[in-house]
Amino acid sequence: MIGCDCAVCHSTDPRDSRLRASIHVATPECSWIVDAGADLRTQVLRENIREIDAVVFTHSHTDHIMGFDDLRRFSSFRGGMPVYASSATMKDLKRVFEFAFEGLNPFPGYLRPEPHLVTGPFDLGGTRLTPLPVPHGNSEVYGYLFSRGGKKYVAYLSDCSGVPDKIANAIKGVQVLVIDALRSLPHPTHLSVDQALEVASRVEPGRTFFTHISHELPQTFEANLPSNTFIAYDGLKLEL
Amino acid sequence: MIGCDCAVCHSTDPRDSRLRASIHVATPECSWIVDAGADLRTQVLRENIREIDAVVFTHSHTDHIMGFDDLRRFSSFRGGMPVYASSATMKDLKRVFEFAFEGLNPFPGYLRPEPHLVTGPFDLGGTRLTPLPVPHGNSEVYGYLFSRGGKKYVAYLSDCSGVPDKIANAIKGVQVLVIDALRSLPHPTHLSVDQALEVASRVEPGRTFFTHISHELPQTFEANLPSNTFIAYDGLKLEL
Repeated sequence: MIGCDCAVCHSTDPRDSRLRASIHVATPECSWIVDAGADLRTQVLRENIREIDAVVFTHSHTDHIMGFDDLRRFSSFRGGMPVYASSATMKDLKRVFEFAFEGLNPFPGYLRPEPHLVTGPFDLGGTRLTPLPVPHGNSEVYGYLFSRGGKKYVAYLSDCSGVPDKIANAIKGVQVLVIDALRSLPHPTHLSVDQALEVASRVEPGRTFFTHISHELPQTFEANLPSNTFIAYDGLKLEL
Repeated sequence: MIGCDCAVCHSTDPRDSRLRASIHVATPECSWIVDAGADLRTQVLRENIREIDAVVFTHSHTDHIMGFDDLRRFSSFRGGMPVYASSATMKDLKRVFEFAFEGLNPFPGYLRPEPHLVTGPFDLGGTRLTPLPVPHGNSEVYGYLFSRGGKKYVAYLSDCSGVPDKIANAIKGVQVLVIDALRSLPHPTHLSVDQALEVASRVEPGRTFFTHISHELPQTFEANLPSNTFIAYDGLKLEL
């Protein structure tokens, strides 16, 4: 964290250096990212990602949207960039990136968003994306369940302060649960480690990966977690 | 650049890896940055910058504003963040970062902008900042002249497609000219190398540093430039 001298901020474990939370999902048919924070360009260059066919948003907080314009290259490759978001998030995206949504920049190579409001499950290639409305402090944001052929592969809940039973039941038995676990102490808008473990106990996933980790949670804390529970890190790749 | 296999994008010279254009100015009295692009957090951490007393904007294009919210730490340290911008840029900042300007987030540690409209020269500590209106394609943006005790130290013109004689005269004889030089080929909104050299021939600075360099201009091109002309790179520090 900026201006911090704590042990994690000075850690020599590269996994303790974290950029903004985001994932890239590649399937046989197409690929997409979830969220587009300020680090998007750095993340895409680091992973040498060459194709992004859509962007799916959880919510519009700055750490999830401020890199959106850096999708211009992928938009240019394919002639437009499908954008999936709730109506509240899309409204914010249109306000913040007004020039893109209103097509104010005629130069080639600019971002051309193609908005798709998410009001229920939708498909990207052969994958079904089911929005998972969860509380994030006083607001409601989306997590997403990715399933193929009826099989639940991944539930992604990057930002939440609680997971209602209805959502836990919808993702029950998922192969991989990726879930907000900011730190050990409680926080008004994010799950703590204990709260995330409690959610996992209801979801009963194959494996659980903590995400949206703050500098108050060192990677070494993973040793204290159950054997199927991990602390995700930048660049982590899962093949399912 | 994302998805590019050119020689510069694969260069092993670390100076060919460039984040978004920005500068940090430290004086005996205070320090500030010019612009706050998406890479702000990465840049601040890399340089271990511990204090920022103000942010001064050239314009509101995404590569200059999308990291603004990452000033929250510095804002928190000092109880608020003075923001200097033209009325057009401030209007865009207020639209994009509505939650910050409207104080919608009550949690401690959030960004509290203190807007100052730039309509003419103003002082930060013992430094006078003179806005330099220049064309940037179809829009007008600000460069800035930094002077102390009547002495012209730095003229910063990161984004411009031309420099009118009135501006060149105002900064004539400046110690350091930092000027947009995107690439060798002309561009509708940025100066080319030859155009930047032509501006320098009118300004007659002590030294010229090219900035806002694209992947079409390798660092090695510096060998072709006049002896007092350099290609700036990320992390470059000048003591004046």
